[in-house]
Amino acid sequence: MRLSVPSQTVDLQDPIFLAHRGGKLRTSTTVPLDSREDLSVAYTPGVARVCEAIAADESLARTHTWRSNVVAVVTDGTAVLGLGDIGPAASLPVMEGKAALFRQFADVDAVPICLDTKDPDEIVAAVAAIAPSFGGINLEDIAAPRCFDIEDRLKAMLDIPVFHDDQHGTAVVVLAALTNALRLQDRRAEDLTVTVVGAGAAGVAITKILTEAGVGDVVVCDSTGIIHEGRGRLNAVKARLAASTNRAGRRGDVTEALRGADVLVGVSGGSIPESALAGMAPDAIVFALANPTPEVDPEVAHRHAAIVATGRSDYPNQINNVLAFPGIFRGALDAGAPQITEAMKLAAAQAIADIAADDLAADRIVPSPLDPRVAPAVAAAVKAAS
Amino acid sequence: MRLSVPSQTVDLQDPIFLAHRGGKLRTSTTVPLDSREDLSVAYTPGVARVCEAIAADESLARTHTWRSNVVAVVTDGTAVLGLGDIGPAASLPVMEGKAALFRQFADVDAVPICLDTKDPDEIVAAVAAIAPSFGGINLEDIAAPRCFDIEDRLKAMLDIPVFHDDQHGTAVVVLAALTNALRLQDRRAEDLTVTVVGAGAAGVAITKILTEAGVGDVVVCDSTGIIHEGRGRLNAVKARLAASTNRAGRRGDVTEALRGADVLVGVSGGSIPESALAGMAPDAIVFALANPTPEVDPEVAHRHAAIVATGRSDYPNQINNVLAFPGIFRGALDAGAPQITEAMKLAAAQAIADIAADDLAADRIVPSPLDPRVAPAVAAAVKAAS
Repeated sequence: MRLSVPSQTVDLQDPIFLAHRGGKLRTSTTVPLDSREDLSVAYTPGVARVCEAIAADESLARTHTWRSNVVAVVTDGTAVLGLGDIGPAASLPVMEGKAALFRQFADVDAVPICLDTKDPDEIVAAVAAIAPSFGGINLEDIAAPRCFDIEDRLKAMLDIPVFHDDQHGTAVVVLAALTNALRLQDRRAEDLTVTVVGAGAAGVAITKILTEAGVGDVVVCDSTGIIHEGRGRLNAVKARLAASTNRAGRRGDVTEALRGADVLVGVSGGSIPESALAGMAPDAIVFALANPTPEVDPEVAHRHAAIVATGRSDYPNQINNVLAFPGIFRGALDAGAPQITEAMKLAAAQAIADIAADDLAADRIVPSPLDPRVAPAVAAAVKAAS
Repeated sequence: MRLSVPSQTVDLQDPIFLAHRGGKLRTSTTVPLDSREDLSVAYTPGVARVCEAIAADESLARTHTWRSNVVAVVTDGTAVLGLGDIGPAASLPVMEGKAALFRQFADVDAVPICLDTKDPDEIVAAVAAIAPSFGGINLEDIAAPRCFDIEDRLKAMLDIPVFHDDQHGTAVVVLAALTNALRLQDRRAEDLTVTVVGAGAAGVAITKILTEAGVGDVVVCDSTGIIHEGRGRLNAVKARLAASTNRAGRRGDVTEALRGADVLVGVSGGSIPESALAGMAPDAIVFALANPTPEVDPEVAHRHAAIVATGRSDYPNQINNVLAFPGIFRGALDAGAPQITEAMKLAAAQAIADIAADDLAADRIVPSPLDPRVAPAVAAAVKAAS
């Protein structure tokens, strides 16, 4: 799919386009290169001694190259924002922005790598080939269900962290937000029924982390309705979801899925009718995370829910991945961790929740994405859990 | 091959190791990210408009991402400096240094990509896959003869410049140095016989550029001796060399190759006996470029040659690629050139030679690698020739 944008809608003098002109990233160097002596230290002949030392003891690549601080932000351009499959060139502004956020919030160097292939085998081969240059791989905006297999294979092959942010970044922040919502309401995770609407990258990962965090039951709904073991033609990922969720064996549409539910997590990109929300349990919690248009309007949601969060910056309780990924990679890099484990993700969620705990309210269950305390706290928690 | 370096030779408090500690590169961002408004411009939702615009008109990726200014410095770690096949991790300090030189001399952003494969097909596939993220590909320290095929295939596949610096960077600076040596001596290229000792990446490219520049005849010598059409078991690259050089059909060893020669270009990494130099023609020109030990000691060379150059910074006339590659890529990126043509390389050589022409002497045939006039002059010449 290629988007067709009428040319008159692109105004290169618009502030947005002016801000992106020439790109948003630069490289710089930390060593002086102003004299022959400088060159002989940073480049030849001096650099040869560092190369020889790493050839003899590869662990020195962690301390004596930039690898220990640099993450590749890798995409195939197939699921970019809400735009879908726009290709590698058009995805580059997002990956540059992501790299800029790594720099801004966690002092992590990051390089956008937009791949000219959608073939999972070729994606895995390309990422594995470039891996010695990087301290971590942040997969981004790769369509489901291929993203699951690609991440799993790379995690098995590589000895550096591989993290699909659309899955795990979102899941970590959702868990943080839910943790604080329960604190406010003095409720326990094991008593909850959570309905996740959307079974893409985010929905699958959210279901997994909520289950690990002890949520009583999760019911997952895709565009066909509730996922259950009796449903035909489930792909491998959804078959695993069916086996691990929906203990009551519910069947039916989203209205059925929400009947009596304590929590709704919307990561579908679609919309959910108010009548379905009306069936939720008292003191309901609604996270409507589709961007830019939440599955249910926050004002409508408030008629049926005690706590409402969205992905938008112009409403309270913005559930934004930027609360998670910079600190998670900072902590993993600082620890020299070979992967980002489930324990590290749970620790990250707890750290994010704890930042907001001092000043908790129904419209302040997560910190601001700009809160400078978040990334260091997440990094410390992740490192400790590694 | 992995090098074995006795651990006592690695002193991490040594100034060389201290300079490389933590690596030599950083990324930075050119846009503010301090407020919600900043985030909404540089990241979501604003960035989506730039993505859509590029999806509709891919040429906007040149103007509205950093791609137009960023080069991948790609190696497989098989021919690093004089160290040989030390692998991707150990090659990273050199590639970082190279990236730092791009930044320092030509305001080009550059990213080291060290590949965990030596398979030419896999190298080509990985570089082609990551190409949409970059404005150019600088291949580096890939062993001959695979480097020729890898470069040729990538040039055919990609619409951005692909440039194997060990070949073409060296060739451009050798041609610049020879141009000024001939100016000093008031001689013409077509009257010269040049002996190139070494038939690796640099030797092949030097032979090619000197032929294009009109040198009368080139004789190429490898470790077996003079390359000629009657010699058996030549690989494809050497067979082409045999067909395009050595018009007189000479045979024999390096002494035979140098008998009566006007110019020696050593790019072998080996040594050449003084007795062989003694057979060169009067007013001989000797470029002994092996690093760190030239094929012939410069003081010995001066007994038989009027003009001597090396690759070392501690002798006059340092023939160093840094005179070429930063300006060549700057010019190609500024021009939006889809490749670096032979005409662009010849223009670069002329620009380098012209910088030194004002103050020419037998020990000043090339500019200093630190001369700030070089890269802008090379860039302008390359852009004009594109």
